Amino acid sequence: MVIDCHGHYTTAPQELQAFRDAQIAALTDPSQARPLAAMSDDQLRESVQPQLKFQSERGTDLTVFSPRASAMAHHIGDAKTSLDWTRHCNDLIHRVCGLFPQNFVGVCQLPQTPSNPLANCIAELERCVKELGFIGCNLNPDPSGGYWSAPPLTDRYWYPFYEKMVELDVPAMVHVSASCNPNFHATGAHYINADTTAFMQFIQADLFEDFPALRMIIPHGGGAVPYHWGRYRGLAQDMKRPLLADMIRNNVFFDTCVYHQAGIDLLLRVVPADNILFGSEMVGAVRGIDPETGHYYDDTKRYVDAAAISDGDRRKIFEGNTRRVYPLINNKLGAVAI
Amino acid sequence: MVIDCHGHYTTAPQELQAFRDAQIAALTDPSQARPLAAMSDDQLRESVQPQLKFQSERGTDLTVFSPRASAMAHHIGDAKTSLDWTRHCNDLIHRVCGLFPQNFVGVCQLPQTPSNPLANCIAELERCVKELGFIGCNLNPDPSGGYWSAPPLTDRYWYPFYEKMVELDVPAMVHVSASCNPNFHATGAHYINADTTAFMQFIQADLFEDFPALRMIIPHGGGAVPYHWGRYRGLAQDMKRPLLADMIRNNVFFDTCVYHQAGIDLLLRVVPADNILFGSEMVGAVRGIDPETGHYYDDTKRYVDAAAISDGDRRKIFEGNTRRVYPLINNKLGAVAI
Repeated sequence: MVIDCHGHYTTAPQELQAFRDAQIAALTDPSQARPLAAMSDDQLRESVQPQLKFQSERGTDLTVFSPRASAMAHHIGDAKTSLDWTRHCNDLIHRVCGLFPQNFVGVCQLPQTPSNPLANCIAELERCVKELGFIGCNLNPDPSGGYWSAPPLTDRYWYPFYEKMVELDVPAMVHVSASCNPNFHATGAHYINADTTAFMQFIQADLFEDFPALRMIIPHGGGAVPYHWGRYRGLAQDMKRPLLADMIRNNVFFDTCVYHQAGIDLLLRVVPADNILFGSEMVGAVRGIDPETGHYYDDTKRYVDAAAISDGDRRKIFEGNTRRVYPLINNKLGAVAI
Repeated sequence: MVIDCHGHYTTAPQELQAFRDAQIAALTDPSQARPLAAMSDDQLRESVQPQLKFQSERGTDLTVFSPRASAMAHHIGDAKTSLDWTRHCNDLIHRVCGLFPQNFVGVCQLPQTPSNPLANCIAELERCVKELGFIGCNLNPDPSGGYWSAPPLTDRYWYPFYEKMVELDVPAMVHVSASCNPNFHATGAHYINADTTAFMQFIQADLFEDFPALRMIIPHGGGAVPYHWGRYRGLAQDMKRPLLADMIRNNVFFDTCVYHQAGIDLLLRVVPADNILFGSEMVGAVRGIDPETGHYYDDTKRYVDAAAISDGDRRKIFEGNTRRVYPLINNKLGAVAI
């Protein structure tokens, strides 16, 4: 079985974006507000045909599916804006997962708002896990959208949320959203920077001593981290911090959203196989076909298939690690021996 | 000959930091201001013994030498603060280069200040190149120190400075300084993020069409870029931008400040050899010895020596490319055939 731990609902019916556009317009002109228009099951089925087609063509089975990350945009409006938008997005994921239970399992967006306490996020996580059957969440380390005004992920500000994650036994993918800072292209800079930033924060603090059961997935192959693995090993050593392999063992995981063979080869060469989860980010950041290979850039399964690793490690990366990091997935799949 | 394009004067006599401390204290209490204390030539000679020892032990010949990057701290004080501090730092580099002309050639810090026009930077660059014999500069894309309030490097805000760079025929290394944002560890996050950010900015705009002779070095192995080379190729393709290899050819270069063999191997595998300049960042970000190899993490020459590349490419990386990107270096070295 091949589980893709990183898929976003980037192909939702346009009714969802129409609601969002009206919601944003209503921030300055309340008369613009519109309820979310009804969407039929057939519309939803139709909307995920691209994902289903890619699963089938590429030989993947199940996608850990969450709302479109760039559209979370926690910097827009206030706490109510974020909550209303988030609940609609999560409810839609829930419907898709109900229509295609063999193909999708849900991960939620969180109703974050800059400088706000995390009570809404705790409640929404609980709702999504307990009522909607979700298995994890996407946590935005920079709800300001590129101005980095929140405390580091190791700050006690986040601890109440981590307590709930541990209680529910769900991990978080550390995932920023759109950038409203003109310095940062979203998928080309802000995403990758956030991944790198989060990892360095984890090196600097004792978060995983405080929460031994907390699990964080750093997407996009861990940002710059594997490429600079020697720098991070050396910085940790200079700072008299634990070895990276020990620090990450039970707590920090990277996906395989790296869109060329050389990058995947590096990832698999330096990061322990137990800490790598197969992911593709499809349909997402890069949509084209690589003229050098004739295949989609984001067909990351091909790179993992071609990598010089053992079959046992490949099985871990494709399935076992994701079952371990997102254990509630086993409620869906049954506790198949792996 | 082996030229290290990336060395900072991190070992300056403590008189320099004492001046800086007093300068900062004087921002709130003007009575704290102190002039820079005199430093003898012997003090300066002594201060660079670590660099000279590493050059000798590692087999490098000449270091392109600039003030300590993390201490530039353009966010502190006002334009006069930045100018006074910068000139002292550059003058000290000039003295070291005069004492060891075979070992060091100067690159300047710039007196940047958030939101200020670049007139001071233009004047200081001209002074350093014409009067002090410097061959390039370090340009900070985020003088706010981690809040990214400046316009992107492709914005016309920077154009007057680029005009001066082209006129003087000197390149800039894109290099941030200390972070005052608690999210960003300086050398572990802010530096790497800035490298990644700058590269994506270059993809998005026509800067090098406007300035065909402008040359930028992205340090730290290009941040996350080589690891995500497929992502950047794919994003450029989706955005209908030029091929990366064409975009960077005469304008964008990466150094080799990547502190493990796997990282250097990736860099050399995906980035054209013509766009890679040997660098080590010594004495700098990571100071320890890698227990896996028994050698200093930042002894990057060992990785380049061990990489599976042709001798011709190795010569380009060690010498030829740096002579091409920093052509004023040839005034020092003579136009040796390479």
